[in-house]
Amino acid sequence: MANSKPAQQFTQFNNNEAGTRGIVVLRWGHRAHRDARLTTHVALAARAFGATGFILSDTFDEHLKASVEKVTKRWGGKFRFEMGTPWKNAVRDWKMRDGIAVHLTIYGENIQSSNVLSRIRASGKNILLLVGSRKVPPEFFSAEISDFNVAVGNQPHSECAAVAVFLDRFFEGKELAKDFGDAMVRVIPQERGKKTEVDHGV
Amino acid sequence: MANSKPAQQFTQFNNNEAGTRGIVVLRWGHRAHRDARLTTHVALAARAFGATGFILSDTFDEHLKASVEKVTKRWGGKFRFEMGTPWKNAVRDWKMRDGIAVHLTIYGENIQSSNVLSRIRASGKNILLLVGSRKVPPEFFSAEISDFNVAVGNQPHSECAAVAVFLDRFFEGKELAKDFGDAMVRVIPQERGKKTEVDHGV
Repeated sequence: MANSKPAQQFTQFNNNEAGTRGIVVLRWGHRAHRDARLTTHVALAARAFGATGFILSDTFDEHLKASVEKVTKRWGGKFRFEMGTPWKNAVRDWKMRDGIAVHLTIYGENIQSSNVLSRIRASGKNILLLVGSRKVPPEFFSAEISDFNVAVGNQPHSECAAVAVFLDRFFEGKELAKDFGDAMVRVIPQERGKKTEVDHGV
Repeated sequence: MANSKPAQQFTQFNNNEAGTRGIVVLRWGHRAHRDARLTTHVALAARAFGATGFILSDTFDEHLKASVEKVTKRWGGKFRFEMGTPWKNAVRDWKMRDGIAVHLTIYGENIQSSNVLSRIRASGKNILLLVGSRKVPPEFFSAEISDFNVAVGNQPHSECAAVAVFLDRFFEGKELAKDFGDAMVRVIPQERGKKTEVDHGV
């Protein structure tokens, strides 16, 4: 297979520390100028809510990569950022490694009123979470690409919100309490004010 | 009181249809050029996840207002968009009407590992949900302003994700299944493909 490298890079994330399944977010349709901040927020939400990596498909954005990697370095944990991979290759490689693809779309099965989340969990597979920006190609909805089409509500809102809420529900909230290892900075939560613990590495 | 108008405008939302408390999101620090899309996503997430209104404080952005109102008109429900109100006036007026202010911040009490959400619920009050963009004034953390400082995780991510997950947890997910009345367009959720029901109003 000519292009298996991207998915192989993620192999290390297939079994994360908690023994749960790994989720990688694939962002399709990023336009560097227009979507810079939004895609950064999607990637940071992916990281904070428990995904193990992020694929910026079909394009490159060095500034975005640097922003996300800077956060990971400073705030800890492992979070892989990959870019430029053609989306079809990423999906194909993911599936060849026995993963499934879940497409977040307003048109899909409602995460609240259907049993789609249970069926995804029951698969026991690692998940490639597909999120668009502008209108996605119709193929995204097909069985060849998406094992599940999931709507985080059937109202228009935000791919950033959709990723966060999907992950929060999938991991049943536990991701928000976990300790990110190897952090230079940690927040000490408080009722008021700001407190951080900083490891100066000396 | 000289400036009570903005909060009064929200009075109609204090008791929503489900009989639960009303939540209005206040976005501070919006910069029209830099934050346009992100703030739009925050407002749409607020609407989709059950807030009854949105205040763009201290500034005006007619384009943003038009975008959000267009979505509400097309996709239904009641969602009030207000802008230009000085944030302190909005908070003061909200509290004079027996509401509380909840500040979403990475430095606050962790929504997962603390009991802060239960304490907020126990207040039984309507909530003004404060979210910043750039660094907020220190006053935001004070007891005079914020009754609660809540961290949707103590990792950096996105105000859009924070608003969505806070609301999703607060309303225990029910908001994603509710019917938005008076919609011109409704999605018919499906396993595959796109289906909508359109009311052409004739």
